[in-house]
Amino acid sequence: MKEVKVGLLGFGTIGAGVVRVFQQNSQVMTDRLGASIKLARIADLDITTDRGVQVEEGVLTTDANQVLTAPDIDVVIELIGGYEPARSFVLKAIENGKHVVTANKALLAKYGDEILAAAAEKGVEVMFEASVGGGIPVLSAIKENLCVNRFRSIFGILNGTCNYILTRMTDEGADFAAVLKDAQDVGYAEADPTFDIEGVDTAHKLAILIGLCYGTRVDCDDIHLEGISQISAVDIQFARQFGYKIKLLAISKEVDGEIEARVHPTMIPQNAPLADVDGVFNAVRLVGDFVGPVMLYGQGAGMDATASAVMGDVMSIARNQLTGAIGRTPAMAYCPTAIGKLPLKAMSDIVSRYYLRFSTVDKPGVVARIATILGNYQICISSMMQPEGHAVDTVPIVIMTDDAREADIRSALDEIDRLDVVHEPSHFIRIENTIE
Amino acid sequence: MKEVKVGLLGFGTIGAGVVRVFQQNSQVMTDRLGASIKLARIADLDITTDRGVQVEEGVLTTDANQVLTAPDIDVVIELIGGYEPARSFVLKAIENGKHVVTANKALLAKYGDEILAAAAEKGVEVMFEASVGGGIPVLSAIKENLCVNRFRSIFGILNGTCNYILTRMTDEGADFAAVLKDAQDVGYAEADPTFDIEGVDTAHKLAILIGLCYGTRVDCDDIHLEGISQISAVDIQFARQFGYKIKLLAISKEVDGEIEARVHPTMIPQNAPLADVDGVFNAVRLVGDFVGPVMLYGQGAGMDATASAVMGDVMSIARNQLTGAIGRTPAMAYCPTAIGKLPLKAMSDIVSRYYLRFSTVDKPGVVARIATILGNYQICISSMMQPEGHAVDTVPIVIMTDDAREADIRSALDEIDRLDVVHEPSHFIRIENTIE
Repeated sequence: MKEVKVGLLGFGTIGAGVVRVFQQNSQVMTDRLGASIKLARIADLDITTDRGVQVEEGVLTTDANQVLTAPDIDVVIELIGGYEPARSFVLKAIENGKHVVTANKALLAKYGDEILAAAAEKGVEVMFEASVGGGIPVLSAIKENLCVNRFRSIFGILNGTCNYILTRMTDEGADFAAVLKDAQDVGYAEADPTFDIEGVDTAHKLAILIGLCYGTRVDCDDIHLEGISQISAVDIQFARQFGYKIKLLAISKEVDGEIEARVHPTMIPQNAPLADVDGVFNAVRLVGDFVGPVMLYGQGAGMDATASAVMGDVMSIARNQLTGAIGRTPAMAYCPTAIGKLPLKAMSDIVSRYYLRFSTVDKPGVVARIATILGNYQICISSMMQPEGHAVDTVPIVIMTDDAREADIRSALDEIDRLDVVHEPSHFIRIENTIE
Repeated sequence: MKEVKVGLLGFGTIGAGVVRVFQQNSQVMTDRLGASIKLARIADLDITTDRGVQVEEGVLTTDANQVLTAPDIDVVIELIGGYEPARSFVLKAIENGKHVVTANKALLAKYGDEILAAAAEKGVEVMFEASVGGGIPVLSAIKENLCVNRFRSIFGILNGTCNYILTRMTDEGADFAAVLKDAQDVGYAEADPTFDIEGVDTAHKLAILIGLCYGTRVDCDDIHLEGISQISAVDIQFARQFGYKIKLLAISKEVDGEIEARVHPTMIPQNAPLADVDGVFNAVRLVGDFVGPVMLYGQGAGMDATASAVMGDVMSIARNQLTGAIGRTPAMAYCPTAIGKLPLKAMSDIVSRYYLRFSTVDKPGVVARIATILGNYQICISSMMQPEGHAVDTVPIVIMTDDAREADIRSALDEIDRLDVVHEPSHFIRIENTIE
């Protein structure tokens, strides 16, 4: 029976998950592949810590070169994370004719072009299903069975930390800071959570999805970013009263060859399937011109789910190697020559519905002054709420708008914030009603 | 540029969808495939009806042999439906060395073994993504990226007709017969709806999922079947009061090498993602030992969504043909030699929670007599409801049980139905709480 040999760089949590797949499901992999698949070597600087999995003698090494240069290794799995030495190791693996599987979205966001060009040059495969949505097989769905579609939009809940925090804020009415602290204590948020809660991680993933769906390059720095740290318990409560939930969404829409690419807290209808994606679960909703809306849902992180996606890629490469079909499906879903660079729509030009929250003094005529300014910018009010029982002297006013241009909203809010009856800068959250 | 040529058998609704994909998305297919793909011939007995799509001169024929025997055609799409002539045509296409893509689950359920054996013998591919869940890429997900998992369970909403009817009954409080009539009027239900509403179609799809997930053959006739015709508006109303929705589910669980395979109305928690799958949408929820729960959601039927899945298969075969990788992934996800036949668990042995509804006379002691019989069979009551405002002389009693053996439930209900205080045969609906 033929054999495919795998080398692993990085023996952390997900690395241990990969080892568990080999130990537990070796038979099922062979039964599906028609060949055996073997974990030949694992390199990590730390080879003494107990990861809860047994490794055969001679497999573990501190020397990455024993993976990168070993002539018998066909596929290298990179689970080191970060930029260096991950980038150098991946490039060296490619240089040595090895296929690469990685879960490293930061690496792909920054050095994806360089890595894919090197792989194309050398005729090896690079796959990265685990980099977006953990165990959810969304990249392979786009590259394979959904590939006859032109995609129209992408909506993703792609960061477990943010979704965990927003879910707990929603369920418990708790404030952001308190839940973040809890999340850090239980290990669902990093000590420095900026990367997650400010949406950077989500933007890395959205850039990959945009590339695969539309066949276009997008620079992560060009993606509009707003994190969840400004979301307050009171916004979540108002959202519920209007029939919405707040989620951190990655959003992209393609209209007439121009694309929107943005990450921000978004109100979505409570009965939308995405609204039930809670805790550390992730989901991606795509709309293709033929398939219509499709949603894929699953665990966005974790040792085992991520290992499933990593090993799914390894199996795909193994199938290609065994049948001589390396390069069967382009890494970015489109042939390199067909990949373009569609213009990004300026954020000021997007059209959305908006939730607006003002803190005003308790005087007659305040609502009229706010409504007049909105009207001057052609912003229609869809509904409005001024609740009972607010603090003395400060009245919250909540307005849901019809579709409006972002530039008009921002200009109107600037003007409203300069009114002497307005206490503090107004808040806004975009609303997406198109997710059925 | 290389070219792959496709022939189409059956120019009905989905056939017209396939033609639309070729006309509208030819460029996107070429950009992703790196080769051109052409619809060379369409055979249908009726070549005069307007399907709303233009076809080039010379492409349309009434002679299936012009597809089946044409030396230039690489892939044959079978969209005739039913058993014959679909079976003969598929076998002839295979005999002539052509790959086959079909959406015909009835054909696969009855003649799948014969067709796959012929294809293996001849070294051609047979793919059938569109046969389960319409446009949802669930079969390719199981065969490709999720393939390192041992699957533990399958839950599917797989029949659009049933889901449309149950959704309308739930939203409007309407009765089954009235909604069925409406569904027939708008074309969401066949004139003879038996195949759909009694769960036969769902069972065909479940048999395919079981094969791909567990690597086992299951005979459709061995799948336990209950349709939705016995569901009444009052059951839906009680379900809501207990926090549940009623869906027709395909269910399979694998425990210790034994599998459950059943199709029946099921109560699932209102906040479960599957509970929001409404109308003609379908969804499949799988649990793998590594990936954990994964749900895929989309349109289960319709011209365009089904054409997306059909053409996704065509693209997959084209990729294999272009790279010389025919046979890259086994049609049934496992190598033929690894496919076994796991024993089916007897329906009497399954364990579930149950919703029980009794119609009793309005006398003291009735609840006690029912509860005593349940207790005698070791069936624990989880909650109970006897609503106000019922008809004179007839009291509905609703009981939700803890986990109980099906055999015990049936024996207890038999005994209860023989009580002189019970008006009509009792109703039961199984409850699934394990879907988070």
